[in-house]
Amino acid sequence: MTRYAAIEAGGTKFRVAVAEDREVVADTTIPTTTPDETLGATIDFIMANGPVAAAGIACFGPLDLAPSSPNYGAVTATPKPYWGEARVLDRIREALGVPTAIDVDVGGAALGEWTWGAARGLSSFIYLTIGTGIGGGVFIDGKVHHGMGHPEMGHITVERAPGDAFPGRCPFHGACLEGMASGPAIEDRWGLPGNELADRDEVWDLEATYLAQALRSYTYVVAPERIILGGGVLQRPGLLELVRQKLSEQLAGYATSSIRDGNLDAYVVGPRFGQDAGLVGAIALAMDAS
Amino acid sequence: MTRYAAIEAGGTKFRVAVAEDREVVADTTIPTTTPDETLGATIDFIMANGPVAAAGIACFGPLDLAPSSPNYGAVTATPKPYWGEARVLDRIREALGVPTAIDVDVGGAALGEWTWGAARGLSSFIYLTIGTGIGGGVFIDGKVHHGMGHPEMGHITVERAPGDAFPGRCPFHGACLEGMASGPAIEDRWGLPGNELADRDEVWDLEATYLAQALRSYTYVVAPERIILGGGVLQRPGLLELVRQKLSEQLAGYATSSIRDGNLDAYVVGPRFGQDAGLVGAIALAMDAS
Repeated sequence: MTRYAAIEAGGTKFRVAVAEDREVVADTTIPTTTPDETLGATIDFIMANGPVAAAGIACFGPLDLAPSSPNYGAVTATPKPYWGEARVLDRIREALGVPTAIDVDVGGAALGEWTWGAARGLSSFIYLTIGTGIGGGVFIDGKVHHGMGHPEMGHITVERAPGDAFPGRCPFHGACLEGMASGPAIEDRWGLPGNELADRDEVWDLEATYLAQALRSYTYVVAPERIILGGGVLQRPGLLELVRQKLSEQLAGYATSSIRDGNLDAYVVGPRFGQDAGLVGAIALAMDAS
Repeated sequence: MTRYAAIEAGGTKFRVAVAEDREVVADTTIPTTTPDETLGATIDFIMANGPVAAAGIACFGPLDLAPSSPNYGAVTATPKPYWGEARVLDRIREALGVPTAIDVDVGGAALGEWTWGAARGLSSFIYLTIGTGIGGGVFIDGKVHHGMGHPEMGHITVERAPGDAFPGRCPFHGACLEGMASGPAIEDRWGLPGNELADRDEVWDLEATYLAQALRSYTYVVAPERIILGGGVLQRPGLLELVRQKLSEQLAGYATSSIRDGNLDAYVVGPRFGQDAGLVGAIALAMDAS
């Protein structure tokens, strides 16, 4: 058995675990305060439960993931106090002295789903999470795709639905996908949080319309074998099925062979690892690093 | 010197060449009639100028490019008479008896630009052509990306510009990118072909708006190192620069590091091989196959 350190570095809390292979044997939760405090407590916990052979970090973004960058593995521009330029990868790796890999949270989640979950054996798929924000990972040929950085899949163009006057709440783009369809966008538009709107069909019809538009664009750009939809918003019963139905309508029969028959049950699916996606992904990152 | 056969299989004509390394030593043009006639004449020309070590085909789509498909390399559903199900790859390969590679025209063009043109040395880029239709190739880690087929990048979602009442002319999606911004869409919207609208600034302002929307989505999904814009519509002087400017506005500073400063001169560029992109790509495909 090999021990690995797994860190799900979130904006409000860090989940830190030590695993024997895939089995978590010790874990804790640390509030996200300053890099010194939070990374310090993270390192202390791991060392108290080590030694480990490698570490994996699934981290909130944006991160510098350009392979040639001197800041590889650091947080870049973020509105979060203290964390701009925080060198997350370097600090963990230097303190632990073991191979350490980092990816954005959705990249880690995608790797976890490919290694053990809803995307095993696929050569290309997309993992999308719809919650406080909308983010995604593109997985191609055995690894999470990074071009000159990591994708920001939530910020693509969508077409305003007829009758929807909500201006959108993305600070950069206003009415991009995230601006129109994230959890906070739902709450702003309808005046109630999503979990108090479960019975309002028009809420979810509109939500599915925007998500299906985005999935149509992803389908035509990447031609993935599968799209996994995770995140809190997808907890609403029936939403996944509604997205499938609207995507099928929007593709209008113009699609690559495996979905041309219009049955998207195997094409748009839920994740295997819901709330644990980040931590499982961090374990997979650690194994890849070792 | 090695001889290669290169076939640019277009919807109205085939351009067929025999090249010594990259140098075309014999070439001809054959009208696209029936598969028997056109592929027969293609094979005859190559055999009269051979022998060749390998052949490459940059073909109009849609093609079946699923590696495991029994119809790999065949045309799939097409409105073009006679060509539905035409086994282009098999017929060329069997007649010539040499290794033969096929890709969609934009995939071939992308490979050509990577091998000798505007994308040399890059690990990820997008090639987009805007003409009678809008199509694109995504190039990642040394090869043209195919997921469960080939991308259909022209069919992504765009947001209708204020005041634009044109319904869109895509037979599948109406107002998708291709439906709003292809050459025929320009002609339908304004009542004149693009080359007679060169002085109408509002035409190109609107065109650049839609293209920039699409490039924003591509940027956020793929995070490519570069986007090459080719095709007849881009012949209009100043359009490329206008697309850069509008893309910079639409990204609104939210982008990966290499374009965060807002200077997109090296990010959005023209192709090296304009009208010859398909044929050059077919030569590159042949070299890859041999």
